Amino acid sequence: MTTPSHEQGGRVDGRTPDELRPITIERGWSTQAEGSALISFGNTKVLCTASFTNGVPRWLTGKGKGWVTAEYAMLPRATNDRSDRESVKGRIGGRTHEISRLIGRSLRAIIDTKALGENTIVIDCDVLQADGGTRTAAITGAYIALVDAVEWGREKGFIGKNAKALLDSVAAVSVGIIDGVPMLDLAYVEDVRAETDMNVVMTGRGLFIEVQGTAEGAPFDKRELDALLELAGSGVARLTEIQAATLVS
Amino acid sequence: MTTPSHEQGGRVDGRTPDELRPITIERGWSTQAEGSALISFGNTKVLCTASFTNGVPRWLTGKGKGWVTAEYAMLPRATNDRSDRESVKGRIGGRTHEISRLIGRSLRAIIDTKALGENTIVIDCDVLQADGGTRTAAITGAYIALVDAVEWGREKGFIGKNAKALLDSVAAVSVGIIDGVPMLDLAYVEDVRAETDMNVVMTGRGLFIEVQGTAEGAPFDKRELDALLELAGSGVARLTEIQAATLVS
Amino acid sequence: MTTPSHEQGGRVDGRTPDELRPITIERGWSTQAEGSALISFGNTKVLCTASFTNGVPRWLTGKGKGWVTAEYAMLPRATNDRSDRESVKGRIGGRTHEISRLIGRSLRAIIDTKALGENTIVIDCDVLQADGGTRTAAITGAYIALVDAVEWGREKGFIGKNAKALLDSVAAVSVGIIDGVPMLDLAYVEDVRAETDMNVVMTGRGLFIEVQGTAEGAPFDKRELDALLELAGSGVARLTEIQAATLVS
Amino acid sequence: MTTPSHEQGGRVDGRTPDELRPITIERGWSTQAEGSALISFGNTKVLCTASFTNGVPRWLTGKGKGWVTAEYAMLPRATNDRSDRESVKGRIGGRTHEISRLIGRSLRAIIDTKALGENTIVIDCDVLQADGGTRTAAITGAYIALVDAVEWGREKGFIGKNAKALLDSVAAVSVGIIDGVPMLDLAYVEDVRAETDMNVVMTGRGLFIEVQGTAEGAPFDKRELDALLELAGSGVARLTEIQAATLVS
Amino acid sequence: MTTPSHEQGGRVDGRTPDELRPITIERGWSTQAEGSALISFGNTKVLCTASFTNGVPRWLTGKGKGWVTAEYAMLPRATNDRSDRESVKGRIGGRTHEISRLIGRSLRAIIDTKALGENTIVIDCDVLQADGGTRTAAITGAYIALVDAVEWGREKGFIGKNAKALLDSVAAVSVGIIDGVPMLDLAYVEDVRAETDMNVVMTGRGLFIEVQGTAEGAPFDKRELDALLELAGSGVARLTEIQAATLVS
Amino acid sequence: MTTPSHEQGGRVDGRTPDELRPITIERGWSTQAEGSALISFGNTKVLCTASFTNGVPRWLTGKGKGWVTAEYAMLPRATNDRSDRESVKGRIGGRTHEISRLIGRSLRAIIDTKALGENTIVIDCDVLQADGGTRTAAITGAYIALVDAVEWGREKGFIGKNAKALLDSVAAVSVGIIDGVPMLDLAYVEDVRAETDMNVVMTGRGLFIEVQGTAEGAPFDKRELDALLELAGSGVARLTEIQAATLVS
Repeated sequence: MTTPSHEQGGRVDGRTPDELRPITIERGWSTQAEGSALISFGNTKVLCTASFTNGVPRWLTGKGKGWVTAEYAMLPRATNDRSDRESVKGRIGGRTHEISRLIGRSLRAIIDTKALGENTIVIDCDVLQADGGTRTAAITGAYIALVDAVEWGREKGFIGKNAKALLDSVAAVSVGIIDGVPMLDLAYVEDVRAETDMNVVMTGRGLFIEVQGTAEGAPFDKRELDALLELAGSGVARLTEIQAATLVS
Repeated sequence: MTTPSHEQGGRVDGRTPDELRPITIERGWSTQAEGSALISFGNTKVLCTASFTNGVPRWLTGKGKGWVTAEYAMLPRATNDRSDRESVKGRIGGRTHEISRLIGRSLRAIIDTKALGENTIVIDCDVLQADGGTRTAAITGAYIALVDAVEWGREKGFIGKNAKALLDSVAAVSVGIIDGVPMLDLAYVEDVRAETDMNVVMTGRGLFIEVQGTAEGAPFDKRELDALLELAGSGVARLTEIQAATLVS
Repeated sequence: MTTPSHEQGGRVDGRTPDELRPITIERGWSTQAEGSALISFGNTKVLCTASFTNGVPRWLTGKGKGWVTAEYAMLPRATNDRSDRESVKGRIGGRTHEISRLIGRSLRAIIDTKALGENTIVIDCDVLQADGGTRTAAITGAYIALVDAVEWGREKGFIGKNAKALLDSVAAVSVGIIDGVPMLDLAYVEDVRAETDMNVVMTGRGLFIEVQGTAEGAPFDKRELDALLELAGSGVARLTEIQAATLVS
Repeated sequence: MTTPSHEQGGRVDGRTPDELRPITIERGWSTQAEGSALISFGNTKVLCTASFTNGVPRWLTGKGKGWVTAEYAMLPRATNDRSDRESVKGRIGGRTHEISRLIGRSLRAIIDTKALGENTIVIDCDVLQADGGTRTAAITGAYIALVDAVEWGREKGFIGKNAKALLDSVAAVSVGIIDGVPMLDLAYVEDVRAETDMNVVMTGRGLFIEVQGTAEGAPFDKRELDALLELAGSGVARLTEIQAATLVS
Repeated sequence: MTTPSHEQGGRVDGRTPDELRPITIERGWSTQAEGSALISFGNTKVLCTASFTNGVPRWLTGKGKGWVTAEYAMLPRATNDRSDRESVKGRIGGRTHEISRLIGRSLRAIIDTKALGENTIVIDCDVLQADGGTRTAAITGAYIALVDAVEWGREKGFIGKNAKALLDSVAAVSVGIIDGVPMLDLAYVEDVRAETDMNVVMTGRGLFIEVQGTAEGAPFDKRELDALLELAGSGVARLTEIQAATLVS
Repeated sequence: MTTPSHEQGGRVDGRTPDELRPITIERGWSTQAEGSALISFGNTKVLCTASFTNGVPRWLTGKGKGWVTAEYAMLPRATNDRSDRESVKGRIGGRTHEISRLIGRSLRAIIDTKALGENTIVIDCDVLQADGGTRTAAITGAYIALVDAVEWGREKGFIGKNAKALLDSVAAVSVGIIDGVPMLDLAYVEDVRAETDMNVVMTGRGLFIEVQGTAEGAPFDKRELDALLELAGSGVARLTEIQAATLVS
């Protein structure tokens, strides 16, 4: 329940500023879903499942295109203090909405909806335990679930044998400036202290899908922005390697 | 995605009628909660966390008694087909309500609220994967989380050193009659076929806390009821042993 | 507004332990519904109406089967203290959900949905005044409304002339142990004091449809369970006679 | 279920244009509420209960004034076709809101809130059966429940012995023009046919509290308005006599 | 933020009792809607837009008739104190419902739905600033938006060239008795002080569509009612002239 | 209702790629709010009001700090097609939530909450008409309303005479790449066609508060990101001048 303190200048868990937390991905965790992954970024654990349905929502019918969407949620005691369930409150909070939309956009950016055909894939990212970076872990794990759901659709004949539905891979990482130092993959206690906080979603080829930088303390300048983007690029490159290793295993 | 068929007379997974599925309990799964357990009844997996708060709801203040309550929920793709999230629908379904209330009553039956003192323990049971018996797995796992949360409260000084807050242990199992044969701990495909379906919650000493029997097909008679209760008693006895083994480890 | 006290050992209203409260049924109370009954178990008064519709919900269409469902609710001042309306709160409580589902299951257990044909009957049970046993009164009264709605459907030609849509009758009663004595048909002040509380739904032939026993105080053993079930059986037998007398009048 | 047709010029139930339907009031119907009345205007039946609470809502605290408010609702099968419950829909409809507010305003118009003291009376008007004029029956019956709740408060010492909390009586009736003829107390089938429809709430002394006239078909002129108001006045005078007779019995 | 006081007998803004506030109508304010008007009654400002859709709601399909409906709402800071948004509260208040329904009825009273054909017009009246009389300004402005939307439908060929969809014009005004004096078009500070308050909706020809009189203080008599209706008639006549002038410009 | 087409390479309204739309700000539009501005970015019109309250939410009480928050919403017919009201749907959409949060964060970044003292300012940004860039117009206009609300608080003595509550100014603009050309302040038809879309919030001194870049079509590289940020910087500089001019007038 208590959080270890850390000396000024170092990181809470002894990492170097440009080091990811230990990353693990359990591919195919679920026996029910068409694709799934239980991903950990340190103590942050997100269960990602992909549900494949033949057919598309009504507004997309007959256009020869598929649809990918995502929903993000957190278990009530994923965090240090228990939160009320959104189902009990009867409404979804702004943060949940925002992250669900971000995950959906990130995955659609690497999907060729024409090649996917009139099929729908719903990605659920449920945070079982939270210690910072839940949205970036969710995106990184969702990609694994997505790949397997697409493969499932191909095996069942819903997607063409040679259709290249996935244009690239996608992964995400958080970066932030703490005490003037740009740092990679912030744990919760770091996130709280960051002056500037940025979530970066990139493709395996190193292009940007989404850049969301926020001044939590003082506004930031172009030089700081550049340093953070570079750090994020190196983090995503490493995550891309881990994703690739997971998918060949 | 597909369910293997099973021959008439046997069970889907080769068990004898009076055999539990493989039961595993990962005590202390969460690094955030005061007590937690990830419990499996075969492919059914439920994450149970216990959140301890010093103090009680307003309606109980000043009576020198504690409060234990529970919430049950299912991830959208815990089941074979994806369900809409209750948070998205904006309302909690009747089944969810019913099971949450059952878990809460079951745990309160073994709690001495005076000995607990003015403290609140909220149990969250989130079904990560569902294959029948989610409510009975939830109760059985919740007990482990509850024990650890009570212990946590004692260590922090919120509960008296010698206060006996837990009066007994509690576990639950489902039983049902399929093709005329009483069977223990039904998997989902069995549950669907059962003529009579019963959930039994019992204490470690073998007394009943809750008996819920429902005629799904034809009404049942006293003889069938007795057979089911006896089978449930043997199942709960075995679960009680597993709980005890978990708690000494 | 005040509740008369009662001596230890006797009952609040002078009944013997195995005696029902005065039961009255006003069949056909409503001039609007296809079937209706205003039933009283002592001061508990429930208005039951049955609404017959030709056709079934979409998920059942084309299967040649009918559908019976139920909704239970309480007027805000049915009880001693006024409760907020669920419509004002914008959500249905767990207790309401639970009882609605119980009534629906109980009625479906005596319906041959094939013989009913593709017709829907919705039973509404609205508690006008509550003094314990509202769910058992609701089930017992709902049966009368259901019989008349089925008859209405037959007269209008929606149900086959010789189709035996009703397989049996159904009634329900509460039983409980108070100060060690099993008692039948608990009034509210008795219900509050009961150590064990059980609602039993049975057919006219004496078979069980639903058995719901809950330890409110200490857990109970098999001997107590058996005593309660026997008492419930005698109560339901008497209710079955009253139902039959109502239906011939 | 079917509605008898009626000849042009007469009324559906043989009444003269200026005749009320049979009015009955069962004072003290509820054994739970501080005041209550089951009122019938023909087949329209409304259960009115008054709940007395010592104290006022927070926004009124410390001003030495009481509060009277009302809620109106209809059982789902009060009408010829079943309506979905507002609790199930999760929201209150505009018509319900409108009528609840009208009843509340009508009752507050005859209350001296200073004489009432810091007490709250909530009136619930639940329509058990509807055949036109439910809001006017509700207001007329609510007055009886209100009188008894005020009396209850006086007996319990919450209201001063000589405080004149009720300034007058209140009753209401609907009037409308059908085929050019002004008619009193419209039944449902008449209400549907009315060109102009008006609900009039008046005090026992014959003054207006609320006049709500609506052109359902063609707009109406001052002469028609005057004719309707006169007819309403005679109807309310008769209702006032019935209320007075009820309160002396 | 403060409200200037006004001497007894005169009006807050120096008007005579039978004088309207300055009325302005900006026809075609919106570049998006098929019809629109920004109307001011003094400091009360309401944006009215009309949205034309070819087709009607399902329940009206195939009857050869059109549909006109309205929604009223207030910006959170339209008033002196900020109100919570109804979207944030998750429910629409009774007052909003009541006024939306009033506007819809008022507009439908001058529409020949057969001549409109199977088309739907939705009127949105959003109060940007409120100083009393928002519902009457809304109705008066909505008429302008409605006229332009009907004209748009005619130009697009959805309404027959010679179909007379509008039977008359409609406008509304509030009247009230303050210190015994009937006054026209009440500003907010006057509305609060009025003993009797009436909203009157009339056609351009001077017939009544809706009369809603409420005793805020003491009940009122027929003589007062007549005085208010006459004052309202003169106010609506003036508004009708302003509407006509707006529509020829 | 129709959208004029535009030739390849130019802009829909004849602007150069680095040109803002006509910007107008009506400071003090509302006579009710403590600060207000009606801002236009071309056809996009947003009414921004600031509501000042002495005191803070409970969770902030006693910390000597103030609070600034924002709510964004759109009138149903602000857009070309009418949208259902969020109040009618009973829930706030993800986009609304996301933008409300962005506006709140942007304003808090330039507020010294200690200097503000224990006061709360709620900013409401209601889009009266939408043609792209509603969130950037909202932020830019909200700043004006905020300045005036802070000034109002100072005049009333709620904020210290010399307290520097505002650290800087804030404005925002959208940028995007269309047909390979970076363009400033996108109108709706441009926004739809943009491959990459970015919203940039900056201080008057030229530092970043929020950078949100999204690949709508193909992912983007660092060079494109840099070009967009530079263009945004020039746009915000121009908006800052307009804000300053507004505040001295």
